[in-house]
Amino acid sequence: MTEVKLIEWIRRRAGTSRQMLKGIGDDCAILRPRPGEDLLFTTDLFVEDVHFRHATHSAAECGHTALARGLSDIAAMGGEPRFCLLSLAAGKGIGSQWVEGFIKGLLATARRVKCHLAGGDLGHGARTVADIVVCGAVPQGKALRRDTARAGDRICVTGALGAAALSLSEGHPLPPDPRLKEGVALRKLGATAAIDLSDGLSLDLHRLAEASGLAAMLDGPLPVCEGASLEQALHGGEDYELLFTMPKNARIPRSAAGTPVTAIGTMVKGRRGQVRVPGGVLEPLGYDHFRKPKP
Amino acid sequence: MTEVKLIEWIRRRAGTSRQMLKGIGDDCAILRPRPGEDLLFTTDLFVEDVHFRHATHSAAECGHTALARGLSDIAAMGGEPRFCLLSLAAGKGIGSQWVEGFIKGLLATARRVKCHLAGGDLGHGARTVADIVVCGAVPQGKALRRDTARAGDRICVTGALGAAALSLSEGHPLPPDPRLKEGVALRKLGATAAIDLSDGLSLDLHRLAEASGLAAMLDGPLPVCEGASLEQALHGGEDYELLFTMPKNARIPRSAAGTPVTAIGTMVKGRRGQVRVPGGVLEPLGYDHFRKPKP
Repeated sequence: MTEVKLIEWIRRRAGTSRQMLKGIGDDCAILRPRPGEDLLFTTDLFVEDVHFRHATHSAAECGHTALARGLSDIAAMGGEPRFCLLSLAAGKGIGSQWVEGFIKGLLATARRVKCHLAGGDLGHGARTVADIVVCGAVPQGKALRRDTARAGDRICVTGALGAAALSLSEGHPLPPDPRLKEGVALRKLGATAAIDLSDGLSLDLHRLAEASGLAAMLDGPLPVCEGASLEQALHGGEDYELLFTMPKNARIPRSAAGTPVTAIGTMVKGRRGQVRVPGGVLEPLGYDHFRKPKP
Repeated sequence: MTEVKLIEWIRRRAGTSRQMLKGIGDDCAILRPRPGEDLLFTTDLFVEDVHFRHATHSAAECGHTALARGLSDIAAMGGEPRFCLLSLAAGKGIGSQWVEGFIKGLLATARRVKCHLAGGDLGHGARTVADIVVCGAVPQGKALRRDTARAGDRICVTGALGAAALSLSEGHPLPPDPRLKEGVALRKLGATAAIDLSDGLSLDLHRLAEASGLAAMLDGPLPVCEGASLEQALHGGEDYELLFTMPKNARIPRSAAGTPVTAIGTMVKGRRGQVRVPGGVLEPLGYDHFRKPKP
């Protein structure tokens, strides 16, 4: 298939959405915003040999995962997905058949969460790289930010921790399942701040605390995934659960949209960004693309 | 510099915009749309060894060009830029210094056209790949689309054609200068359709004609750039001029926002997408990322 035919093939499958006046097939996609809504935007790179390998990930899994990583950021702000744009550079030797598989995987997930594929860019390069843009929406002023936690707020988490690190160590990486319904439920329940756990609890809690100008104290038992180690639960990335804060005196829900919720700590005044555990301080161990390896 | 410090360095330089409730530094950027506007979205890949080479393009030129390619799509719909998002995977051996140069080049252009850098993603890969997302805005219903030309409309072009192909053949590729003011002027002058000339007149006019369900007849002298060949003017890519249509009886402006305008043809009924020249038919010769090379 040529690029022109491939884009036409994608356009037919992408379908339509009432809010998009124009999707695939012009210089830009055209969105008519709904009154009373703020729009959320996130982009996520998905790079061969960094986030996936052709040998171990099917084309459809890659398409699902590339989109799911972006959807998780929308979930972390309590948003509902509206549309996405896909830029895809196919690596050497990657033909239109792999691209079709990728698009099918992406569109299956997009349809499930009503996130219309409205445009993008196709090209090629030395290695396969995808960049997904997701737009979501929240009622005006209601986005769950990470810089709005207050001292005394309880720190909570959805689901169980360490599952992704455990499954990766066993050689069968889990496809991410973004917590979209949970994010909307937590926004409506009055959560004060939220972040998604993409780089591990220690680093993402550090980020939330730093953005809010506070420290964090872990004081409850962690919901560690069965079979996972404490280290995998504290520092393992890609769980894509939601880490959020609830007001001091609010009732902590047992679950959000059917997913268990566990209170694990408290936001406290103190050294900005510091994450404390009983008797010590937790280092934010996480992945940094530009940190030089120690000799 | 680590990724964390690099993002903080970018955040400080990116500045703020009243419409962005939150820019760099959360799971998503937050935009409060202005009432009465439609939003435009475009993404453009900028790939090492396809669109640029480290040996011949400085980091700052790369940053400018990556953004300018997206801005040209906003110009082609008569939009004003609002914000951009940058995803950047740095190739092997590319450190934070190159990334800083890239960001400086991008931000210089962004400031000039008031296109706030509101977020993105940083990572690494085997080769350098940038993906730029640009959001622009037009008054409701006023976007210049490519599927709205009518039979009898005059086909016009801004500036001169073939300049990019000529300069590339001479070994000094021209940095693109997106026709933003011209696009807004043409929208206000009542243009019926538009597209930017990124892949050459023959291919982009074919696209406009096909989208509008019409054929196109080239019947006027082309504004060929001094020194360029007719082939460079007809098929050379990356001129980033605007190709647009004006109603049959409208006065064709001599210029738009100071850039000369030339009428070069007429939209006609006929085989959809066909581009005719006196005595023949012009093949849409252009670049296709997925077409197999002829043996």
